[in-house]
Amino acid sequence: MRQSQLFTKTIKEIKSDESSVNAQLLLRGGFIHKEMAGVYSFLPLGLRVINKIIGIIREEMNALGGQELFLASLQDPEVWKKSGRWDDKVLDVWFKSKFANESEVGFASTHEEPLAALMRNYISSYRDLPKYVYQFQTKFRNELRAKSGIMRVREFIMKDLYSFSRDEKEFREFYEKCAEAYMKIFSRAGIGELTFRTFASGGSFSKFSDEFQTISNAGEDTIFVDKKKKIAINKEVCSDEVIADLKIKKEDLIEEKAIEVGNIFPLGTKYSEALGLNFKDEKGNSKPVVMGCYGIGPGRLMGTIVEVYHDEKGIIWPKEVAPFAAHLIFLKGGENVAEKIYEGLEKEGIEILYDDRDDKTAGEKFTDCDLIGIPTRIVLSERTLKENSVEIKERNSKETKLVKINEIAKYIK
Amino acid sequence: MRQSQLFTKTIKEIKSDESSVNAQLLLRGGFIHKEMAGVYSFLPLGLRVINKIIGIIREEMNALGGQELFLASLQDPEVWKKSGRWDDKVLDVWFKSKFANESEVGFASTHEEPLAALMRNYISSYRDLPKYVYQFQTKFRNELRAKSGIMRVREFIMKDLYSFSRDEKEFREFYEKCAEAYMKIFSRAGIGELTFRTFASGGSFSKFSDEFQTISNAGEDTIFVDKKKKIAINKEVCSDEVIADLKIKKEDLIEEKAIEVGNIFPLGTKYSEALGLNFKDEKGNSKPVVMGCYGIGPGRLMGTIVEVYHDEKGIIWPKEVAPFAAHLIFLKGGENVAEKIYEGLEKEGIEILYDDRDDKTAGEKFTDCDLIGIPTRIVLSERTLKENSVEIKERNSKETKLVKINEIAKYIK
Repeated sequence: MRQSQLFTKTIKEIKSDESSVNAQLLLRGGFIHKEMAGVYSFLPLGLRVINKIIGIIREEMNALGGQELFLASLQDPEVWKKSGRWDDKVLDVWFKSKFANESEVGFASTHEEPLAALMRNYISSYRDLPKYVYQFQTKFRNELRAKSGIMRVREFIMKDLYSFSRDEKEFREFYEKCAEAYMKIFSRAGIGELTFRTFASGGSFSKFSDEFQTISNAGEDTIFVDKKKKIAINKEVCSDEVIADLKIKKEDLIEEKAIEVGNIFPLGTKYSEALGLNFKDEKGNSKPVVMGCYGIGPGRLMGTIVEVYHDEKGIIWPKEVAPFAAHLIFLKGGENVAEKIYEGLEKEGIEILYDDRDDKTAGEKFTDCDLIGIPTRIVLSERTLKENSVEIKERNSKETKLVKINEIAKYIK
Repeated sequence: MRQSQLFTKTIKEIKSDESSVNAQLLLRGGFIHKEMAGVYSFLPLGLRVINKIIGIIREEMNALGGQELFLASLQDPEVWKKSGRWDDKVLDVWFKSKFANESEVGFASTHEEPLAALMRNYISSYRDLPKYVYQFQTKFRNELRAKSGIMRVREFIMKDLYSFSRDEKEFREFYEKCAEAYMKIFSRAGIGELTFRTFASGGSFSKFSDEFQTISNAGEDTIFVDKKKKIAINKEVCSDEVIADLKIKKEDLIEEKAIEVGNIFPLGTKYSEALGLNFKDEKGNSKPVVMGCYGIGPGRLMGTIVEVYHDEKGIIWPKEVAPFAAHLIFLKGGENVAEKIYEGLEKEGIEILYDDRDDKTAGEKFTDCDLIGIPTRIVLSERTLKENSVEIKERNSKETKLVKINEIAKYIK
């Protein structure tokens, strides 16, 4: 894409109450726009990152046998009354409104109830199980306090997968497979080494659940990490008993601040019983379906990546989630050849942001490039042209090297 | 995909008040699920169709130079008060709610105001124009009466593009290009021959606008069509003056019922003036940006396709929007070879729904196949195997033909 065509521009300074690093850098780079406290829009660069993250998650969910659907946001109170969660005291993040005929309607903050109701149409026998269903859909959460930039917001896209199993054993097998898929997702997104499967409270659903926590000072949570065993315990549930259960030595645990980038929850039969989602087993007995839910917020993941990968100049995107693979810049004398290189790389299918702006100084171009944080910077100047080369620098390195023009595509791939 | 794995099943009869053909067939085929009146969820088959339609629209919007973003649903009343549209009497489809701190918030039914406000950050000079920005985002519309199945609903994904131009002339050039792109989209989606650019009222924005109307008895609109000139006039604005303006002969006009599948609107400077979206022209004078908006609802397009392409047995999907390219069915004796054909076609990158269910009769399989409406049906039986062939039938034809097994992929491509 030509940068002269991109409608966003970088912003030198954000005049706002935005204190988090992720929002500051994403706003300045033109990735997001703040509509209100806790409400952000995604601009073209930001949407590219979100779509890369969604692409990774979708591949891994499909590999698990997940089937994608798209559930409505508008919620029928009758469905939620069956589980008791229509009550604002039970579920305290509702946005509610009224239809033109004055009857009440809610905006979904999660989808257990309507999905359990829907699945009644399709699950009646043990032969219909197990099934795994997921979506990427906006969630609305009327949080009292939005904070941490794009990480705790009032509206966000969420990947929520729900599992439907015959019994606890079948459920557990999938639960463990999904935990592995989650670690793969975080690795592909570049934060694998900083992210730990974390033993946590099961909330109202079950005694325990698993969170995926990424070590960062921007985190709201405190966890105890065993880095050798690649496992952690949320401070909230960390007791001698739990430590013993997990066969961890207390002295191996290090306290860290962390961001919750994903969670997986056993739901048991709470919602299937409430909504009447039953199946007939091999013997003809009716049983409630055993459910689980599995969430990742692509926006929060994006914010986390910015929190852990940035420097004083800007963002440092990992390759697989970067908005573009390379950022091409020309200095004086490089214009004409830059055009040809850009067109050539586009033809090779390399996603490239081409800074073709002729009203910017070299300094401004480099500053923008560091702020936006695309992994590979390609600079073309009179000096490099003498060598029939470009200068290539990775965003996460200080080293530069000359690469022959006809070898750029090979280098980037 | 293996049909045995698909969690949805076809439904013989819909016990509901659903009277529209599109909702009946889409519900029965397992494409959608009805949550409430005017609120539908998209199941895997339906989401595949929606994504095909979105893919076509996205390609054509990108070809126009459109830049994709994703605007928040939650709306700040202050922004809308500037244009006067926060008032329910002015914009009568609002869903409104309250934040936890009791301040008001709305759910977007359209995005002119927040986008004009956002663009102030990026448009200041004539050099920043023109720009074209679009999204696929849920719209919430508190319609008094939902009707026509998935065609007039309270929540739907919409492609809305907004143009930002220096003057009327620059705006008109894009407007005409976008009208051409729209016709291309409808042609690719299979309804080109039934769809007419239709002269219509400009509503509160301008004297006239253009609708794209698809001839169908399920339509809510009445249009007068000149089939030779491939142009139409909405009955609401059809006067002798308009007919003369468009250089149409009154006797060439045929009255038809039609479904509005898209519309394009001049917005003039209404929102740019209200929100203060101005630019400096070449002479340094400050001027309001000239705006236009361009909408297509992928869900309504899907419903329209079903209305115009179905028979008493089910849906007949046009190739480019079909959930799969082919539906593979085996009859007694065909099991083992069917597995191999399925795997072979998947490897060739052909999207195939493979009816591998062993508890269904041939009759049930054929009935499901016709209802779901995938363009090409491939049947494998002892009889066809003797010829080392399969029987292929197009959904929109009665003819069957034998095709050699090693030529199936070539045939479908």
